[in-house]
Amino acid sequence: MQTNNSAASKQTPCDLLIRADVIVTQNDTRDVIRNAGVAVSDGIILAVGTYADLDALYVPASRLDMAGKMLMPGLVNGHTHLPMTLFRGFADDLPLMEWLEDHIWPVEFQLTEEMLKIGAKIGCAELIRTGCTAFLNGYFNEHVTGDTASSAGLRAVLGEGFFHFPSPMYPTAEDCWKTLRALAARYEGASRIRTAITPHAAFTVNPDELKTSFALAEELDVPWQIHLAESPAETAVCLEKHGKRPVELLRDLDLLTSRTTLHHCVDVTDEEIAAIAEGKTKVVHNPASNLKLCSGMAPVQKMVDAGVTVGLGTDGASSNNQLNMFRDMALAALIGKVKSNHASAVNAQTALDMATRGSAACLGWPELGRIEKGCPADIIALELSSPNLMPAYDCVSHAVYAATGMEVCMTMVAGEILYMYGEYKTMDISGLKKEAEKASRWVFSKSKK
Amino acid sequence: MQTNNSAASKQTPCDLLIRADVIVTQNDTRDVIRNAGVAVSDGIILAVGTYADLDALYVPASRLDMAGKMLMPGLVNGHTHLPMTLFRGFADDLPLMEWLEDHIWPVEFQLTEEMLKIGAKIGCAELIRTGCTAFLNGYFNEHVTGDTASSAGLRAVLGEGFFHFPSPMYPTAEDCWKTLRALAARYEGASRIRTAITPHAAFTVNPDELKTSFALAEELDVPWQIHLAESPAETAVCLEKHGKRPVELLRDLDLLTSRTTLHHCVDVTDEEIAAIAEGKTKVVHNPASNLKLCSGMAPVQKMVDAGVTVGLGTDGASSNNQLNMFRDMALAALIGKVKSNHASAVNAQTALDMATRGSAACLGWPELGRIEKGCPADIIALELSSPNLMPAYDCVSHAVYAATGMEVCMTMVAGEILYMYGEYKTMDISGLKKEAEKASRWVFSKSKK
Repeated sequence: MQTNNSAASKQTPCDLLIRADVIVTQNDTRDVIRNAGVAVSDGIILAVGTYADLDALYVPASRLDMAGKMLMPGLVNGHTHLPMTLFRGFADDLPLMEWLEDHIWPVEFQLTEEMLKIGAKIGCAELIRTGCTAFLNGYFNEHVTGDTASSAGLRAVLGEGFFHFPSPMYPTAEDCWKTLRALAARYEGASRIRTAITPHAAFTVNPDELKTSFALAEELDVPWQIHLAESPAETAVCLEKHGKRPVELLRDLDLLTSRTTLHHCVDVTDEEIAAIAEGKTKVVHNPASNLKLCSGMAPVQKMVDAGVTVGLGTDGASSNNQLNMFRDMALAALIGKVKSNHASAVNAQTALDMATRGSAACLGWPELGRIEKGCPADIIALELSSPNLMPAYDCVSHAVYAATGMEVCMTMVAGEILYMYGEYKTMDISGLKKEAEKASRWVFSKSKK
Repeated sequence: MQTNNSAASKQTPCDLLIRADVIVTQNDTRDVIRNAGVAVSDGIILAVGTYADLDALYVPASRLDMAGKMLMPGLVNGHTHLPMTLFRGFADDLPLMEWLEDHIWPVEFQLTEEMLKIGAKIGCAELIRTGCTAFLNGYFNEHVTGDTASSAGLRAVLGEGFFHFPSPMYPTAEDCWKTLRALAARYEGASRIRTAITPHAAFTVNPDELKTSFALAEELDVPWQIHLAESPAETAVCLEKHGKRPVELLRDLDLLTSRTTLHHCVDVTDEEIAAIAEGKTKVVHNPASNLKLCSGMAPVQKMVDAGVTVGLGTDGASSNNQLNMFRDMALAALIGKVKSNHASAVNAQTALDMATRGSAACLGWPELGRIEKGCPADIIALELSSPNLMPAYDCVSHAVYAATGMEVCMTMVAGEILYMYGEYKTMDISGLKKEAEKASRWVFSKSKK
């Protein structure tokens, strides 16, 4: 067992020493440590090992006793649209294009900053409650989500969405690039908020605009991310428009790069998976949303076997209808088996890897998603006395298959506690239900012709 | 809106008057009532309507204020094996036959009553916590589950499992029938415990034994239930053994009757669905277990369209790995769409119907699964201030897609509160974690050759 504490001498000071029954580290060797401890200073993990070892080495300014709990890395949501939490349950049981064109888009283009903020706030509360500590967001007016997440203490990578120009948001391409640069500048130096360049999709943004946006991502040195191959319907549109399938189109534009993350990849062939792997391009899987919109089931095990780094996302609460990474971990593992026609496909460890290390890589933030020396102290605790976690044989199995997400009793980012035992420490959620009611009335009123 | 209170006059006494923000009644017209109330006496619902109406009519001995909550019927788990909660996470990511033969069966046949009881107790705690008030159980030594459920206040229909004779449990058929009769006698007159006749499967019990057991079900006037068509592998075994597919075999034995419930029905053809519908035979769908064991996805929408009554079950926690009906409702709706290749298939209302009225019919207890005058007061409350239930447009959508099950803050059976705000009222769960630890060590020791 690796304790990672060789550099510490007896009586080394630290900010915080956490004790727990067990830690699922998600380090390179996937160590699971019993009677465990984590030492933290300045928001960074100093050491991980047995509590006895760490207690002998460190003199902490404060201690956190998580007896009866299991620690895990904070989960990383690789793909979501936080303000769309406004539309949770607003239009269900519809296919992707009908859902977007007849229900979501007509209201979406009227959204005010006040409404965006309410959606983002509910979303942050749910992410924190269910143990997610970082997320990739794609939406409009991303500073609203950025400021809301920052205030809540979450990490976010912001992707201002854009369509072919002129669009309702941007009369010209230049207006858009100006906004993207301004967004990057706004969060320059922020420790928890970063940005990415996120064109909406290959069927809604023209090839030359895709190329220009990629050049901007290179200039700013940020990830470039796009919805791709989400459904056979998208493939059909792409074929009609460009004479190519979505992955082919990106490959021919030299956009399958290590800077690229593709969101969804439901409708991809074996050859396309090979091209994605060849480009060191990453993929985010969104099982709940893909099922609910009847887009299909992504060939996750095939992608993993081909060497593709696969992350996991909830997509928006409008098509999930949760922002609960525990639910999507279970779904990824459960449907991964029928998709591959083998019960060992997308096993529990694979699903947990996707929700931690995989998504972290997709965010361009690979030091997240693990409890390891030198990494940020983004840690969650699960209450092991929850009846659905009894008895306990395998912590990874329990995290993926048995936990609902509501067993999370502590959520920490950079050593700062955001939630503990029912209390939000960084958010005032006392008026949130009333705000949500106001927002639902507003959405409902705008949806009427 | 139907208030069902025409028979009550002003100042009618009742035991209990409950007030809630909203009630999802699941009555015949699927009314959802806002600012609602339920009047209860002797464990039976007297009236359902607006709180104002009921408050004017009834003089309750006690009141229960569920402001900020949504009431729903207690969910009905149509298929589980409660003592197998012992095996939660014990052997994952394996196909059905390998999982049974190499991992579960070798330990299962050594189980002591003490171990069975621990498994059943953990299971009861999870069912109560996640809003399930009645379940169909299939296992061995069913009096253990029966007594545990009875003591916890849950409703259960007990199905003592049996295989082709001689089996490890029963040297002869007569021994088995004697046990089944004794089980029925043990719970005669019990208000919350009933029994059923449950041969294991068509590939493990011979045709003449199936017929004899059905005659016993007729004699005792109880449901007859069997695992059937769970996977293509089972179909192959059945074809080899009997020259017929599972549903064909039962049809030719005249066992597709209105007394019959088939558990799983993953591998069924359109013709077989028609035969099931023709026989007024019911089906219980177990989506999580079918996915995890890679058995496949049952054609639920096709069965519903054919007029088959479909219930919902979790199966055992050994292959789920939860006993959480909210999770299986979401799964049924989500995979139902890709199975039918349409996003409107297995919509939220269909999934909720399966988990309430559908399962109740499968248990042979059709007055369960609805909040309606004259029905038992089996009611649960969900906390609407949980961030994942904000904003709120559609209560049925939220129950199926957005709830995790942990929003349940009150579980009531026959007007008796089993759980409220974190406290179990009928179970002492303080020592349960230690008992679970003992059991997991025992299982682990018995699994070694």
